[in-house]
Amino acid sequence: FSMGKSLRRPILMIPGPTEVYHEVLASASMPVYPHYGRDWAEIYEETTKLAAQLFNTSGEVIIFPGPGSAALEMGIANLVAPGEKIIVISNGFFGDRIDEIAHHLGCRVVSLKADYGRVVEPRELEETLKIHRDAKGLAVVHNETSTGVKNPIIAYGRIAREHNLFYIVDAISSYGAVELQVDDWGIDYCVGYAGKALSSVPGIAPVAIGHEVFRFVEDRRWRPSSWFLDLTVWKSYMDKWRPIGHPYPSTVPTHSIVGLREALKIALNEGLEKRYERHEKMAAGFRKAVKAMGLEVIAPEEYASPTVTAVKSPEGLSSKIIREMLEKFNVMISGGLGQLEGKSFRVGHMGLTATPHYMVYTISALARTLKNLGVKVDEYRPVEEFYKHIEK
Amino acid sequence: FSMGKSLRRPILMIPGPTEVYHEVLASASMPVYPHYGRDWAEIYEETTKLAAQLFNTSGEVIIFPGPGSAALEMGIANLVAPGEKIIVISNGFFGDRIDEIAHHLGCRVVSLKADYGRVVEPRELEETLKIHRDAKGLAVVHNETSTGVKNPIIAYGRIAREHNLFYIVDAISSYGAVELQVDDWGIDYCVGYAGKALSSVPGIAPVAIGHEVFRFVEDRRWRPSSWFLDLTVWKSYMDKWRPIGHPYPSTVPTHSIVGLREALKIALNEGLEKRYERHEKMAAGFRKAVKAMGLEVIAPEEYASPTVTAVKSPEGLSSKIIREMLEKFNVMISGGLGQLEGKSFRVGHMGLTATPHYMVYTISALARTLKNLGVKVDEYRPVEEFYKHIEK
Repeated sequence: FSMGKSLRRPILMIPGPTEVYHEVLASASMPVYPHYGRDWAEIYEETTKLAAQLFNTSGEVIIFPGPGSAALEMGIANLVAPGEKIIVISNGFFGDRIDEIAHHLGCRVVSLKADYGRVVEPRELEETLKIHRDAKGLAVVHNETSTGVKNPIIAYGRIAREHNLFYIVDAISSYGAVELQVDDWGIDYCVGYAGKALSSVPGIAPVAIGHEVFRFVEDRRWRPSSWFLDLTVWKSYMDKWRPIGHPYPSTVPTHSIVGLREALKIALNEGLEKRYERHEKMAAGFRKAVKAMGLEVIAPEEYASPTVTAVKSPEGLSSKIIREMLEKFNVMISGGLGQLEGKSFRVGHMGLTATPHYMVYTISALARTLKNLGVKVDEYRPVEEFYKHIEK
Repeated sequence: FSMGKSLRRPILMIPGPTEVYHEVLASASMPVYPHYGRDWAEIYEETTKLAAQLFNTSGEVIIFPGPGSAALEMGIANLVAPGEKIIVISNGFFGDRIDEIAHHLGCRVVSLKADYGRVVEPRELEETLKIHRDAKGLAVVHNETSTGVKNPIIAYGRIAREHNLFYIVDAISSYGAVELQVDDWGIDYCVGYAGKALSSVPGIAPVAIGHEVFRFVEDRRWRPSSWFLDLTVWKSYMDKWRPIGHPYPSTVPTHSIVGLREALKIALNEGLEKRYERHEKMAAGFRKAVKAMGLEVIAPEEYASPTVTAVKSPEGLSSKIIREMLEKFNVMISGGLGQLEGKSFRVGHMGLTATPHYMVYTISALARTLKNLGVKVDEYRPVEEFYKHIEK
């Protein structure tokens, strides 16, 4: 038995992009909208309102027309001037990327790092802030996809508020799958994404921008050197071109936004509480299954991510496992990133794929792959453990 | 007779986005690809190779994941340091935007401006360069959509080469419709677009980057302050992640790129020469029709754009014309931009809409609209003039 080339479009059990809802794909096959005019204004406003519900914010939401990393850069570039201090918490590849971006922007970066698979304890942040009282901002990844760790952003946020820091959160791989209370948790700038747990098409990022942020950028005496990433540029077009339905400095990726609107509606129809529970349950069930294969999950249980699981690979087998999963079972999983490259593999379970339909097949394929590669594994117990957990 | 809401999705006779090919929309309704792996690597490489054929370049092509303006900013930000001199040629809204971006980046900007509807003569550029011998770059819009003027970029390029300037060209609204010889014309950095004359979905921009550019950015002693827009960041990921099929610093908008690939194939199947002729012919025919309505085209005939025509509006009627065209005929045309706001209207004819099918209806609707608004106009001669021109 072997799958032909035509069947090879893989099942995406990676940490994004994910499988996309049929409704999103159907909307993406409709003619494009122009990016201004009455009809477009309605669609854009509706989309940002739906996106705001997932952020739980009464602040401004924009749909950033580019990758999440660029949207994050926009947050840092507008809130922390070159030469000013920013605290960056990192425990993985994407935390390190924020570090890299902040350095690139010329900020004085105070890096608070934890080993991959661990978290920076909130009291470490408190200790650091006793020394760096002049810090202006704090940036952190909510859900670190390189390690499958969900960071304690509520606790960090409380401390950020006490110290009057702008709080920037990368929620790219948690948005739509994990509870997010932008206003209540004191987040000033929060980046979501369309093509991860929302199961829409990749390419655009909903961004929540607090009222404080706009007040700040209008008063500050410096500006980011990038035109595209300067929020005052955005604000001026939001004011000037809102009457023509185009609150945006550039051409709008209307097609992707129409897809995002469908995905947001699907998420809200499911119910956010239910959606968060579903992701929790599927992820926990998957960890049980992985442990039943005799493998170790990198994240400690209390910080384990609801959307991605990183697994320590049996010595020397990680790339073989990934290849076998793809070639024999048509399931695409990911390799390790950063420090975990070659030592782990990662499985995404978000949006459409955080369902038994996808999970059971992936677990079964993984167990069979391990067996094929000579790892001693009980082939049926992992699926059994998964069912036992989700039926609880 | 009046069109119901359900029929209201307008026919896009605007300077982008344009109507989209069925084949592109069909490809956009397929499941998304992951942004790495063997299959994706093939698609991405194929797309950049097709895009390179439209640029006529043997240099590097990337598919920039954002708006054209941001891609242009990337060019300036990498080639002209803050404090260094750049010559910006402008004769319209989008030329002024380059000016604005270059100022924002902290460049010393030498603005060479012509009135809207006119061009900066190449000898003016030569005169200017006698004074500003220390200039590092030259930036200009190929096809200025605010006025419908096609700028003499070949002549500018010759001068840029003589003076050793990096030559940056915004070909956003000409790419795929107007001849473009990036290598032969000495263009170092050229920005195209997916959602204009290519009739693909909006949101991404093919960018041609000359060999010289990469040599320069690797040797220079400064860097742009933006991480996302720094070509050395791009280059490092291109080198590091090419083996995994992901020569890109971030998540890739795979879905939009698959659509772009279809549109590029359609353009190359039509044949570039034929395509350029078709756009020339449709645009010239449209200008004849407009003149037959007693109206004035803003661009002089010798510099008239093959993809967009800006027309001087009868006194006080521009917004009425635009509204009537949309509400009575379901044809969306655009208002004036910058200096021409309220004094003109603009009609796009590119890709799918640069065909008699779209042109004749637009001409007929425009003549009827003028008549309805009390303008004395022969209703049938404009269509006749159009046919006469294109049948020549």
